[in-house]
Amino acid sequence: MQMWKLVLAYDGTDFHGWQVQPGLRTIQGELAAAIEHICGERTLPQGSGRTDAGVHALAQVASVALQAPIPAPNLLRALNRALPPSIRVTEAALVPADFHARHSAVSKQYEYRIYRGEICPPALARYVYALAWPLDIAAMQQAAPMVLGTHDFSSFAAVAPDRTARMATDAEIDNIRTLTHSAWHEHDGLLIYTVRGDGFLHHMVRNLVGTFLEVGRGRRSATSLPQLITARNRMVAGATAPARGLFLHSVNYPESGATLG
Amino acid sequence: MQMWKLVLAYDGTDFHGWQVQPGLRTIQGELAAAIEHICGERTLPQGSGRTDAGVHALAQVASVALQAPIPAPNLLRALNRALPPSIRVTEAALVPADFHARHSAVSKQYEYRIYRGEICPPALARYVYALAWPLDIAAMQQAAPMVLGTHDFSSFAAVAPDRTARMATDAEIDNIRTLTHSAWHEHDGLLIYTVRGDGFLHHMVRNLVGTFLEVGRGRRSATSLPQLITARNRMVAGATAPARGLFLHSVNYPESGATLG
Repeated sequence: MQMWKLVLAYDGTDFHGWQVQPGLRTIQGELAAAIEHICGERTLPQGSGRTDAGVHALAQVASVALQAPIPAPNLLRALNRALPPSIRVTEAALVPADFHARHSAVSKQYEYRIYRGEICPPALARYVYALAWPLDIAAMQQAAPMVLGTHDFSSFAAVAPDRTARMATDAEIDNIRTLTHSAWHEHDGLLIYTVRGDGFLHHMVRNLVGTFLEVGRGRRSATSLPQLITARNRMVAGATAPARGLFLHSVNYPESGATLG
Repeated sequence: MQMWKLVLAYDGTDFHGWQVQPGLRTIQGELAAAIEHICGERTLPQGSGRTDAGVHALAQVASVALQAPIPAPNLLRALNRALPPSIRVTEAALVPADFHARHSAVSKQYEYRIYRGEICPPALARYVYALAWPLDIAAMQQAAPMVLGTHDFSSFAAVAPDRTARMATDAEIDNIRTLTHSAWHEHDGLLIYTVRGDGFLHHMVRNLVGTFLEVGRGRRSATSLPQLITARNRMVAGATAPARGLFLHSVNYPESGATLG
């Protein structure tokens, strides 16, 4: 068996998220089907984390152990032939046997894209949250770094129905996470939030964005963020921003997780 | 009754083309439904021409006569609220009563986009023809202007099953068209063909593109285009390029077709 690291880009619009679900089209399911089609091996590729329905990825990472001694360029080409055009494998590399897309990850970066114009071009509509309301961007930029550092982010965590089960299997024993980057900037007509951290709770980025947008609309003060964190209560923070604007930007691994070549 | 000129941008991927068809989702059908929803008037907006299933538009033009005395900004906003995000009305303006989106048009411009890289980003996949084959772009650029001028373009016209009926209703009494611009250029990682003319036959742009691509792949010489035109035989020209790369770029009207304000 050889361990593979796969990097994937996808348009999440037409998928029910990353995780395999019976009878639903998911990224993990499509990837497993493509691998079985190519290698004849039934696997469950592990992702760096689940992305929700409608969330996109520029560079999601998956790990999977395969018996087939297929050269990396051939696996890459074969996967892209087998997968739909909305999912691309951008890299395929052999890695040490102990590599695990989620457990080995040291940080992840997300990006949230907002289109500010009155009429959103159709070719962008699947990949942005179109929001023409006036926003106090300076206030949002002031609020963004207030979530940096190590905190209990319960105020920004979805209370999922399957939460207990997920906590048991995933060792998500608490809601403490460390954010090392949190900023809003404007680029190419889009308003973009970028956030990097050692991990993210369910809906955390979309709940942070929804809260920053309420700051931008003057419904909260920029300086209210610390109190929201301290409250550890989902009811006090802002609404969940739509999935369509969210991209998993990248997943980072320690140098020891480098490819074998 | 007041005559309206509407400019539309759309992502054609999920539609069965422009023209209303029973039981199928079309751009014209969606627009008519939105107008009926807003004004309570049953209309059939006239397009500058039909776009095929999967073909996109940056600025399709439609004309429609309405009784409702609705201000233009309100109609624009209401239409964009009623239409799906994949169809946007970018302009709505009152025009003289004799304006007709198709009959008044003096020229149209199309654009065909080809992605040349090995792995096409998912967010582009709906809007380009992904073609990683080596292409002799200089040869394609040499061939492009050879279709300029007034010719019988039968070699590049689809022989549609409903052709006789369409000719009768549309007064498409011949296959003679005049092209005033035809060029290939590279921009932002894409290879783009732009063509402008007084009218286009069914599949004409896609058949031209398919033929130029065969020049680019060395299967035809750049200088073979004039003979293909002279042959007036669809069998001699190249394959039809996929719909996904084609955009109706713009429709031009004489100055007298200017808006009333």
